[in-house]
Amino acid sequence: MKVATDFDLKQYLKDKKSKIENFIKNYFQTPITPSVLHESVLYSLTAGGKRIRPILCIASYEACNGTKDITPYAVALEFIHTYSLIHDDLPAMDNDDLRRGKPTNHKVFGEGIAILAGDGLLTEAFTILSNPDYADVNPDILLKVIYEISTSAGVRGMVAGQAYDLISEGKEPDEDTVKFIHLHKTAAMIKASVKTGAILAEASEDKIGRLEIYGKAVGLAFQIVDDILDIESTTEKMGKPRGSDLQKGKMTYPKVFGLEKSKQKAMELIREALEAIEVFDQKADPLRKIAKFIVNRTA
Amino acid sequence: MKVATDFDLKQYLKDKKSKIENFIKNYFQTPITPSVLHESVLYSLTAGGKRIRPILCIASYEACNGTKDITPYAVALEFIHTYSLIHDDLPAMDNDDLRRGKPTNHKVFGEGIAILAGDGLLTEAFTILSNPDYADVNPDILLKVIYEISTSAGVRGMVAGQAYDLISEGKEPDEDTVKFIHLHKTAAMIKASVKTGAILAEASEDKIGRLEIYGKAVGLAFQIVDDILDIESTTEKMGKPRGSDLQKGKMTYPKVFGLEKSKQKAMELIREALEAIEVFDQKADPLRKIAKFIVNRTA
Repeated sequence: MKVATDFDLKQYLKDKKSKIENFIKNYFQTPITPSVLHESVLYSLTAGGKRIRPILCIASYEACNGTKDITPYAVALEFIHTYSLIHDDLPAMDNDDLRRGKPTNHKVFGEGIAILAGDGLLTEAFTILSNPDYADVNPDILLKVIYEISTSAGVRGMVAGQAYDLISEGKEPDEDTVKFIHLHKTAAMIKASVKTGAILAEASEDKIGRLEIYGKAVGLAFQIVDDILDIESTTEKMGKPRGSDLQKGKMTYPKVFGLEKSKQKAMELIREALEAIEVFDQKADPLRKIAKFIVNRTA
Repeated sequence: MKVATDFDLKQYLKDKKSKIENFIKNYFQTPITPSVLHESVLYSLTAGGKRIRPILCIASYEACNGTKDITPYAVALEFIHTYSLIHDDLPAMDNDDLRRGKPTNHKVFGEGIAILAGDGLLTEAFTILSNPDYADVNPDILLKVIYEISTSAGVRGMVAGQAYDLISEGKEPDEDTVKFIHLHKTAAMIKASVKTGAILAEASEDKIGRLEIYGKAVGLAFQIVDDILDIESTTEKMGKPRGSDLQKGKMTYPKVFGLEKSKQKAMELIREALEAIEVFDQKADPLRKIAKFIVNRTA
């Protein structure tokens, strides 16, 4: 298994994150009316996420020899992720009061504005993606990206996962159910992020397929690790109460498989992800390191 | 003022509506999982709307000499309209129990699923729009359409109108406020529907500009008539309680300008709309008749 050695992941993540956050900061310079909507959108966008999805998009693009600045399109993925968190935290959904150590959007701005901020962010993602002025990308490539992202985010992707998650609360742990939820709720958009980078780089079908396997595996591992951290991490590190999945009767991997087997599964998935991209050269080292980082993270 | 004579609007609306509803019926033939999400999405999509937005899109396309079947792209507009109704009816927003004479989505499926059905429909609109297989349309044209629709639906369009509407409930009637709300909440997407047709037909900038004026004017008139009907129509005809705007302390045209002046304003807007498209030939007759229909409707 090819493993990167002389590559500083911490610095890499910091650089990409700063580029992404600069773009976000500048994007909403023209005020949105009413101002409470502006504040609500910015509040959640700047609440200090890891920016894993846009970073994976850029890393995948670079692994496929892309050389342009695709930050705007990567940020569209973060808009969709942020919308999903705002809606997911609502009382009618997960009913969470804290997210990344801060009050959730609806706690600060009220439910109505939070719903609208989410709707607005989802919509704005497609405004960015349909703006061909950001980078010199062919319209047919951007259309492919929009199709990939919208199918992964929609009723056969992330939204389906959220719905299944919602109706499965308090139900008996079940292998098929938890796999469906995690593959749709989390893995679909992580897979889409990785694939978006490859599509933007106009990679071969073979490479896109390999990155799809990588993205899906890493995405599923990411959610399994999230489930594990809900049990093993601390409230302080996570910025939300420890054990909240358990308390809500959420269907999680540890609940279905136990902690040890869940950890094994996450490790297996990372191996699968690394194998899928073995044919890539050292430009895929960030993807390799990120896969390992995801399974070893503590928050 | 050019006015159509030998044109049967009723039959025209019926034909287009049936085409649109057939497409919707076939679109979700492959089941969505979980089934409650499928049912929720279909419930609101088939709740018997007037289909004004997709019909305006097709009428505008035909007025610009378009000859292909653009039903799928027109339906994307109906998806966005339907999502906006589902979210608008939520307890945290307008808190409506009835829509078109039937219980609102969240009343039947619960708030969580209703939020997700709305999210899913909004997302699915972009899946349709980015699928170049539906009609032989150039990718750059579809990108322009996606940009037009997403900007009109988003935080500087419909979502801004909804947010302003929400925070203005119970406030003193104010001309600028009600105009902002109506232009964004309703007119923006009606304008986008008309413009989408023109962009798909690859109309000249001049024609697109004229149809933009038409769409904005007709859209604003549509909402003013809605406000008037809330006072003058019956609960039975409207499928929701009469006077519900008044009861909620909504900012409406009659509240700001009085009933008579509101009616005058709606008539003026229709004149403005008709003038803007005077240069079009008889293929624009449906647009002309629809404008008059909108101001004369009783439900």
